[in-house]
Amino acid sequence: MRSVSIIGIGSTQFGKLTGRTIKELAVEAAVEAIADARAPREKISCLFFGNFLSGVFTGQEVLAPLLANELGLRSAECTKVEGACASSAIGLRLAYLLISAGFHDLALVAGAEKMTEATSDIATTAISAATDITTEGACGMTFPAFWALVMRRHMYEYGTTREQVAMVSVKNRANGVTNEIAQFRKAVTLEEIVSSRPVSDPILKFDCCPVTDGATAVVLCATELARQFTDCPIEIIGSAQTLGPVRACDFTDLTTFPSTVEAARKAYTMAGIGPSDIDVVELHDCFTMAEIVDSEDLGFFPKGKGGAAVEQGLTSIAGRIPINPSGGLLSKGHPTGATGCGQIYEIVRQLRGIHPNQIKNARIGLTHNAGGTGTVVTVHILQRPD
Amino acid sequence: MRSVSIIGIGSTQFGKLTGRTIKELAVEAAVEAIADARAPREKISCLFFGNFLSGVFTGQEVLAPLLANELGLRSAECTKVEGACASSAIGLRLAYLLISAGFHDLALVAGAEKMTEATSDIATTAISAATDITTEGACGMTFPAFWALVMRRHMYEYGTTREQVAMVSVKNRANGVTNEIAQFRKAVTLEEIVSSRPVSDPILKFDCCPVTDGATAVVLCATELARQFTDCPIEIIGSAQTLGPVRACDFTDLTTFPSTVEAARKAYTMAGIGPSDIDVVELHDCFTMAEIVDSEDLGFFPKGKGGAAVEQGLTSIAGRIPINPSGGLLSKGHPTGATGCGQIYEIVRQLRGIHPNQIKNARIGLTHNAGGTGTVVTVHILQRPD
Repeated sequence: MRSVSIIGIGSTQFGKLTGRTIKELAVEAAVEAIADARAPREKISCLFFGNFLSGVFTGQEVLAPLLANELGLRSAECTKVEGACASSAIGLRLAYLLISAGFHDLALVAGAEKMTEATSDIATTAISAATDITTEGACGMTFPAFWALVMRRHMYEYGTTREQVAMVSVKNRANGVTNEIAQFRKAVTLEEIVSSRPVSDPILKFDCCPVTDGATAVVLCATELARQFTDCPIEIIGSAQTLGPVRACDFTDLTTFPSTVEAARKAYTMAGIGPSDIDVVELHDCFTMAEIVDSEDLGFFPKGKGGAAVEQGLTSIAGRIPINPSGGLLSKGHPTGATGCGQIYEIVRQLRGIHPNQIKNARIGLTHNAGGTGTVVTVHILQRPD
Repeated sequence: MRSVSIIGIGSTQFGKLTGRTIKELAVEAAVEAIADARAPREKISCLFFGNFLSGVFTGQEVLAPLLANELGLRSAECTKVEGACASSAIGLRLAYLLISAGFHDLALVAGAEKMTEATSDIATTAISAATDITTEGACGMTFPAFWALVMRRHMYEYGTTREQVAMVSVKNRANGVTNEIAQFRKAVTLEEIVSSRPVSDPILKFDCCPVTDGATAVVLCATELARQFTDCPIEIIGSAQTLGPVRACDFTDLTTFPSTVEAARKAYTMAGIGPSDIDVVELHDCFTMAEIVDSEDLGFFPKGKGGAAVEQGLTSIAGRIPINPSGGLLSKGHPTGATGCGQIYEIVRQLRGIHPNQIKNARIGLTHNAGGTGTVVTVHILQRPD
């Protein structure tokens, strides 16, 4: 199998992008990624498009061939992939596998979601499509409700405090201030967070990521060909996708996600490294609590110590293992289908040394993207050339 | 690259399946396919789920991991794929590629759609998601309208007659009578067809496939391992996926689909055969006219001769090249996301020699599945062991 590298990245602004269609957003991100790759677009023979809910939110499907037609990629095999909030990272993994096997040399992976024009009723119902709607989904087990269970249990089991959980939001909102594409660029204080309105006790407003419009894109290339196009191909040295429960009742322990643990184990094994070798992380902080649980499940801290780690600043930009220097989903925003490639966009900027919140000497980065209740999890490990 | 074979098939009844969820339908088809494969289900490490509009019609997404959880496939990588009406054939192709490259030994591909509970307004709007909704889709270019343009042009260019086009429906409805899973099992006469109510002139009611509920599933296996499980592995000897226009205005000639021509060319080349080597065909007759155009584009007849071929009985069960002996989309039904694997189901039954409309000595079969206006096209060629 061949090595595969990322040679181009693109992203729109994340936020409320009224008056722009999902097609326009995807084209903007893809054009930027292709220009960044400096590769002739007619050589792109494969396109995966990650999207969760465009049919519901915009009435537009066939997004993959729609984008290919707009870009003039006449010979590309085009597929939309869906795995809830992990959709575009699944697309990245499939493109990685197909290039690795030699079926393609160059592939484009895009992700997009247009969510903010839906009413909150429609948005809440639509997003519940990532639960089992015939069982828990129909009983009101929304995602804030699920994460409320996780948070309460983590606090009970490990003594994690309300303030420690809130500090995830303090950190990520502070990080977002300097990220020019972030939805929220205003810092919040611990006091503002813990006094914000309740959503699903103990989850408060600032514990939740926002509803977001946005698109992202990544160009992948066989590493053996990448130097034709770029001086800094970012190699994918670890890639894994795993399956988790689709219902809360199927968890034996609500404080850990076996699909994240397993995806991390597979990706580390493939890369031949461990958590201590990672310099920078973008992980799936759809809720503040998610960042703490994920940081443990990815092996950065022992189970139950993630809350204290945030409090001690270990996950800050200057900390031992910087997590979500982009601002994460909490601050940068969460256009569901676009998020996976959006994390890749951030890590590639880190490994190129051009990130607005640059981690010094970042050489190896990790992305963790999760759909549903950890129902689909991907972990990717990227490395810059020496 | 390794050879890949189909070792298990499953399908629900096609039709109006009121009171059953899309999850239940998918489970039924998948359980049947896995039982048919006689392979231990824990060895299935990959699952693709083809679906077009479940988010809109049922509010349920994450269908791939949902199905895997129901089946207890704990280690499977699960992805929903979408390419409008070609969704599950795209899943088949991806599973084929990944097994071929050695990433998996056994994969499950499922397809499902639950459409009949939507009102006709919702259904029409939803299906328009396969057009470019910001241009032609918004101007009323529905699929009946598009096929009306194609039909009128084919009649003008080649002298194809109204009666020849109707004979596709006569044939396919007759074929459906003996297919126990078909939605329509009642023959119709030429007179009934040409006097049925107008939909989009010159398209009449019996020129259109119905709205359908249904699910299908296929188990794929590396051929080198297939004999452990079955005496009759059906080998995939040709596989191709191509891109076509997403708007009628992008066609230079409305009587031919370059994406079908190109997919056929690629699949024949890969198989090392030509159209005359094909014993039986299931192709995408979403409208009567589509069967005629596709039968030409797949190389079975010269351009413009498809209408006469139907009239002469060349595409009948006893004809030179039997097309849609299952009844096709027109009679069997068209649960969009399920159709691609449904065609595979029919061809595998033919190549096993167990089809209710068995083609004598069928050794090589072809499936053609199209999404949108030929926006995504797949062609697969299957061969039984000697």
